[in-house]
Amino acid sequence: MVPRYARQDMTAIWEPESKYRIWFEIEAYAAQAMGDVGMIPVEAADTIMAALDNGAMEPIDVAKIDEIEAVTRHDVIAFLTYAAEKIGPQARFLHQGMTSSDVLDTCLAVQLDRAAAILDADLEALLEALERRAIEHKYTPTIGRSHGIHAEPVTFGLKLAQAHAEFARNRERLAAARKDVATCAISGAVGTYANIDPRVQEHVAAKLGLTSEPISTQVIPRDRHAMFFATLGVIASSIERLATEVRHLQRTEVLEAEEYFSPGQKGSSAMPHKRNPVLTENLTGLARMVRGYVTPALENVALWHERDISHSSVERYIGPDATITLDFALARLTGVIDKLVVYPERMRRNLDRMGGLVHSQRVLLALTQAGLSREDAYAAVQRNAMKVWESDGELSLMELLKADPEVAGALSAQQIEEKFDLDYHFKHVDTIFGRIFG
Amino acid sequence: MVPRYARQDMTAIWEPESKYRIWFEIEAYAAQAMGDVGMIPVEAADTIMAALDNGAMEPIDVAKIDEIEAVTRHDVIAFLTYAAEKIGPQARFLHQGMTSSDVLDTCLAVQLDRAAAILDADLEALLEALERRAIEHKYTPTIGRSHGIHAEPVTFGLKLAQAHAEFARNRERLAAARKDVATCAISGAVGTYANIDPRVQEHVAAKLGLTSEPISTQVIPRDRHAMFFATLGVIASSIERLATEVRHLQRTEVLEAEEYFSPGQKGSSAMPHKRNPVLTENLTGLARMVRGYVTPALENVALWHERDISHSSVERYIGPDATITLDFALARLTGVIDKLVVYPERMRRNLDRMGGLVHSQRVLLALTQAGLSREDAYAAVQRNAMKVWESDGELSLMELLKADPEVAGALSAQQIEEKFDLDYHFKHVDTIFGRIFG
Amino acid sequence: MVPRYARQDMTAIWEPESKYRIWFEIEAYAAQAMGDVGMIPVEAADTIMAALDNGAMEPIDVAKIDEIEAVTRHDVIAFLTYAAEKIGPQARFLHQGMTSSDVLDTCLAVQLDRAAAILDADLEALLEALERRAIEHKYTPTIGRSHGIHAEPVTFGLKLAQAHAEFARNRERLAAARKDVATCAISGAVGTYANIDPRVQEHVAAKLGLTSEPISTQVIPRDRHAMFFATLGVIASSIERLATEVRHLQRTEVLEAEEYFSPGQKGSSAMPHKRNPVLTENLTGLARMVRGYVTPALENVALWHERDISHSSVERYIGPDATITLDFALARLTGVIDKLVVYPERMRRNLDRMGGLVHSQRVLLALTQAGLSREDAYAAVQRNAMKVWESDGELSLMELLKADPEVAGALSAQQIEEKFDLDYHFKHVDTIFGRIFG
Amino acid sequence: MVPRYARQDMTAIWEPESKYRIWFEIEAYAAQAMGDVGMIPVEAADTIMAALDNGAMEPIDVAKIDEIEAVTRHDVIAFLTYAAEKIGPQARFLHQGMTSSDVLDTCLAVQLDRAAAILDADLEALLEALERRAIEHKYTPTIGRSHGIHAEPVTFGLKLAQAHAEFARNRERLAAARKDVATCAISGAVGTYANIDPRVQEHVAAKLGLTSEPISTQVIPRDRHAMFFATLGVIASSIERLATEVRHLQRTEVLEAEEYFSPGQKGSSAMPHKRNPVLTENLTGLARMVRGYVTPALENVALWHERDISHSSVERYIGPDATITLDFALARLTGVIDKLVVYPERMRRNLDRMGGLVHSQRVLLALTQAGLSREDAYAAVQRNAMKVWESDGELSLMELLKADPEVAGALSAQQIEEKFDLDYHFKHVDTIFGRIFG
Repeated sequence: MVPRYARQDMTAIWEPESKYRIWFEIEAYAAQAMGDVGMIPVEAADTIMAALDNGAMEPIDVAKIDEIEAVTRHDVIAFLTYAAEKIGPQARFLHQGMTSSDVLDTCLAVQLDRAAAILDADLEALLEALERRAIEHKYTPTIGRSHGIHAEPVTFGLKLAQAHAEFARNRERLAAARKDVATCAISGAVGTYANIDPRVQEHVAAKLGLTSEPISTQVIPRDRHAMFFATLGVIASSIERLATEVRHLQRTEVLEAEEYFSPGQKGSSAMPHKRNPVLTENLTGLARMVRGYVTPALENVALWHERDISHSSVERYIGPDATITLDFALARLTGVIDKLVVYPERMRRNLDRMGGLVHSQRVLLALTQAGLSREDAYAAVQRNAMKVWESDGELSLMELLKADPEVAGALSAQQIEEKFDLDYHFKHVDTIFGRIFG
Repeated sequence: MVPRYARQDMTAIWEPESKYRIWFEIEAYAAQAMGDVGMIPVEAADTIMAALDNGAMEPIDVAKIDEIEAVTRHDVIAFLTYAAEKIGPQARFLHQGMTSSDVLDTCLAVQLDRAAAILDADLEALLEALERRAIEHKYTPTIGRSHGIHAEPVTFGLKLAQAHAEFARNRERLAAARKDVATCAISGAVGTYANIDPRVQEHVAAKLGLTSEPISTQVIPRDRHAMFFATLGVIASSIERLATEVRHLQRTEVLEAEEYFSPGQKGSSAMPHKRNPVLTENLTGLARMVRGYVTPALENVALWHERDISHSSVERYIGPDATITLDFALARLTGVIDKLVVYPERMRRNLDRMGGLVHSQRVLLALTQAGLSREDAYAAVQRNAMKVWESDGELSLMELLKADPEVAGALSAQQIEEKFDLDYHFKHVDTIFGRIFG
Repeated sequence: MVPRYARQDMTAIWEPESKYRIWFEIEAYAAQAMGDVGMIPVEAADTIMAALDNGAMEPIDVAKIDEIEAVTRHDVIAFLTYAAEKIGPQARFLHQGMTSSDVLDTCLAVQLDRAAAILDADLEALLEALERRAIEHKYTPTIGRSHGIHAEPVTFGLKLAQAHAEFARNRERLAAARKDVATCAISGAVGTYANIDPRVQEHVAAKLGLTSEPISTQVIPRDRHAMFFATLGVIASSIERLATEVRHLQRTEVLEAEEYFSPGQKGSSAMPHKRNPVLTENLTGLARMVRGYVTPALENVALWHERDISHSSVERYIGPDATITLDFALARLTGVIDKLVVYPERMRRNLDRMGGLVHSQRVLLALTQAGLSREDAYAAVQRNAMKVWESDGELSLMELLKADPEVAGALSAQQIEEKFDLDYHFKHVDTIFGRIFG
Repeated sequence: MVPRYARQDMTAIWEPESKYRIWFEIEAYAAQAMGDVGMIPVEAADTIMAALDNGAMEPIDVAKIDEIEAVTRHDVIAFLTYAAEKIGPQARFLHQGMTSSDVLDTCLAVQLDRAAAILDADLEALLEALERRAIEHKYTPTIGRSHGIHAEPVTFGLKLAQAHAEFARNRERLAAARKDVATCAISGAVGTYANIDPRVQEHVAAKLGLTSEPISTQVIPRDRHAMFFATLGVIASSIERLATEVRHLQRTEVLEAEEYFSPGQKGSSAMPHKRNPVLTENLTGLARMVRGYVTPALENVALWHERDISHSSVERYIGPDATITLDFALARLTGVIDKLVVYPERMRRNLDRMGGLVHSQRVLLALTQAGLSREDAYAAVQRNAMKVWESDGELSLMELLKADPEVAGALSAQQIEEKFDLDYHFKHVDTIFGRIFG
């Protein structure tokens, strides 16, 4: 975790206090169910639940638990020892028939579930910003580019609408991954419920808002977590895509949009005129990190037999790092979109600078419809287009075409002029927006 | 693609003939819709659809198309030129207002959709094999292991039931990923439908069983494909998990199960007695490859502006390689499970070899329930367990416990003996099986 | 392997004929040494060496060997059976005391060594092209950019010289990785030389130009191969860097350089004026693939005990795929650089278009040297720079500075003008070139 | 960074104090050189050098610098402002003609160089432990395994000697990667030395023990860093290999070695008899993390033009995380090897348990040397070996062979018995040790 790329709420999920609080919730609800099914005395369960309701464990003394763990070298035993000090002798009924992983894995499920809730809210905020700016620029003309080369006109709103659709998909994927990973297992040392009634798991799952795991070993199977982190990697890649778009738009020669530049901010120690797209460059790097956590998560799946603990160290890194980084990145991206400075005049100037070449496709079609073969039409457009290209936009394609005998033989001057109409390209924008924004 | 790790049906999807056939379907259905909406003459559309129905393009002459491409250096133009030779002058109405990516991307969607259908069938077959063997070994006792160390008894059926649940999840994930990637875009050079009616896309999508893409640029957005390949990576990781289990079980010292060994097969040129788990080792390697394709797919998402073509070369590799390898791996794994030679006696012997240590958890619980503190109970069990451990299973934990004054003071001999009953562990197996197999 | 991204010489290394030829070389040289040390009859060794010298195995009948393998299910046994048919009864002395991996791993070392030789030649050719073009454009002024924003002047030759230095490093890394992986092991079933004299390995290594492996298990340790493929991943990343540079330079708005565009080539079916940087986009994708092979190679290191065969399937993919793809990519990149169309006038126009902002750093320095505090100097430059920036290069920074009382109070008009001299920036170009090209 | 997987010395390298200290060293030595070459007044240089010598910046007030950065939003400017407060007006001559990256990148080089020094010492300690234990167990017989199946005898010392050779290679690779990454660039905004004499860079490099970078842009090229982190990934994979070996050896059924288990340590809350290989399982997970950082480092290479800042966030994670984790892992592995509890009797028992099958290869060879064809010899050994295999080691291969007419016809009883001699396998152990340990 890199503090400068971390936000409060997400970080809090991964702090030791949070972990111990969740542990105690799991243990207490488990005790409650054990009382109900007769595994432990009802009074013990009541005492424990009272401790939960009264906040008897608060404030959590992390240093104290660490101290105990230094001796026992076992985290859950350390925690139970600590709990016994806080609750009294009835605490010996805690954790009956359970194994450490019942607590650890269910806790991780709660943490990832909560992290996903924050990420979902992040995505919602990003979608709102994208929708607002997309509608604002629904009909702002700009050049569409393939291969970095001018192609045909689009609107800036379409660019943002595409990003909206992409992040809406990501939100659905996150919801599925969240559901996948949010399960509760209280199934004992090897998953057989040998020493614990299966109803305990059902009860804890219900209380914590998790799905009851149908079959576990000592641990919850790690394909669930792999799917979760892989999904974060996909979201990160979408962040990189939109960040890359902004970086391109802010290039000196393009300059169709800029990250917001606050008055006090210095761009460079050496070149005071520079306004660099540092936020989106930063997002590009953060996306690399979140993607980098996917493979370790995939490698975690193949645990040996009913479990080995190799996954644990990996999760100590990527649990916090992937969620905290992605949360930060989504929020930063939302800020970039929200405050993005857009330059419609510059977009228009760029659009016009190629002497009308971007309309060549329409002329090509018109020529074939006027009876030329595809090959002849292509050749006719290409020879004039090349002249415009080589003039660096000084020559006008429209004028050259009017002067070309073969073209002029097939299309009238007015017909040629009609092919250079910008609105022609935007007639279906409303249809597309209707699909995305309803 | 490595021929020895490829099966016929999946490979066929990626052959040039298949690709050109799908291209023509897309172009023909597009022409049909264009005829309907008045973009091209109805007779042209009819001629083209007749060519589709009559198989006029068949047999596809790949060499001929390659020849044309060598000149044009553009694959779709080469194909259209070829089509014109087969269909005649009406072919000039093909591809009107479309861009190459409309064809290429929709074709890739069809290919991945078909590949997913095969993978789904593979998973179904694997699930059947797992279910059959799980039920066969529902109550076959075997030792559960954590950290490679004996823990408590499970049944071999439980191991397979867990794998079943995991692959059932994978099947659902694949279905979601398939739906994600199976979209059709016929939206023109920059996705604005400038020169093509949006209804054309709707029609082609419906005919090909795809979802109509709500917004594309020149290309279908690559987050869809990233999600698809990431999902294959998760499935591959589950394959590695089950393969690793078999490899462990076949170790000389464990030998609880073996891959089927055909009579004619030689295990090693040097050591004729060896029966090596080569299939599951191979699966471990194949899983690495399928996982290795995830990151390139994620890197493909951030195309520049409305598209660049960097994704294309990546997809030429991973489209075939990931699906062909995963198909092969799933089929191989199904074969391994289907014919797995299981040794219940050996499982039982391994289970018993630790002098009853695997029952120590039950004794621990009984002691705490009989009033000992958790710490005292733990100490009492541990001191006797260590003696058994150091005897390498020669001493019996049950006998030592009976002879331990502190233990004997809390539990009668009969109570102690009851704690060593194997069936105790299996009382909830039926509940678990009910969750998995209904 | 994707045929369109493969070249003849590299592909040939990985064909079955090559493999079997190398196998026979290994077996024959091993037999020669065995004859010398008395492990097998000298006549047998002589017969076998004669078969090697006479090409008795040629032409290699791959189909026949496949047929035998279909029965034996063991590739080396199949090959030895085939060899016996070609050579006669003395062939029974082949492979004495050896294990299959002795042949397979040493063969892989030979293949990777040969592949590295081709890659080394590829790098040499690329370095030559880079040097030639760098010297050609040693003093061609162009704008240096950070964050995609104009910074200060550089020369186009410097860009290429940097690439040269980077690929020269890569060539050294490849040489080290090649040496690392080019080892020979003939050490028997578990690496103890139990049934084979260690001198056999020494002899075979010497004959094949490999290092004799100091200690192996059944296999050559895979950290060597991991290092090799990781190095290819670094080289691929450098390819992506240079390819990305070209893609940027070819953007419509930048257009400082272009990939060579052959007269017959069509850029797009829809937009005939387009010249797309498809080669360098393609290289970007190929780089992703070569990088994607690094992780499987790293995962291959942790074989179980003296070996498991999980690495083998991975190597069947990445051995050919990584080397063939990288060879193709290096050759393609060399072609791009060799024929790159460079537009010095356009570079100059871009350089000038920001109204002299790129010289602001020099003014800033001059002001501090003239006694202004860093903060005051920064503010003075920044307020004028912002005006130029907002004028989109219409205003001249030099003129504004002359008119600024605070600046004019510190620097004379002539002093200000001197700060806008381009040659000032290039005074150390020769020094840098001296370091790179000697 | 996960505190529990971090050690003091390595962590200190990455603390803000260290960074600022290195920054000041760079700036001060640069000023010294600038004084010498006449770029700034000698008195200014002297004042600055005196500040360095007197520790005028100490103690570094990180909070104060952070405060300034919160306003300037630029880290180097914040630091220079802070330095001016500490040193006085002469500080305005700091950083003349330099760009932030000159400081940041050279600082990173120093940090990675120091990190590599620690890792080198870690490797040295590991090599010492491996050598000591290898020599201790030079002739401790144990079974060699391929595919997890018993193959032929090796010694435990050989296993450790192999690991020694592997880590010795890793140490060489690290040295090369360290040299690659330890370079100094003080070349200005775009690497042209426009405003700074190239001798400044030479001087700073010499003072800091770095190589002078022959050509940089605004930044030191990231192929250097990619190579560095890729090398760490290879080392991590070797750690995984050795950790996996220990995990296998500690399995209940194998139990040939164990991680040291301190008296106070509890293995499991539920199963007090368990001694789990938790350190090596942990190392397996840590290896996944270090490997996971390789791809982001490779993706960092392709910066745009003369630089973009996407690499920076990645390096804020992986700079500390990869080096701290690897340092911890190497130290942990050294501890594991150093204190590994080895059970030679158990090794011997495992070796003998297969009824002599591990000697079958020798018999096979003897039979072919006695004149049987390879096929007949193989069949003879195989039919007897299968009987032993099916008896689970109850039958003796030696006795069965003596009773087999075909075998007995070729080899005398004494000849057969000789083939079952263990020492036969170890006759070259000394040769191998000589190669590794000299």
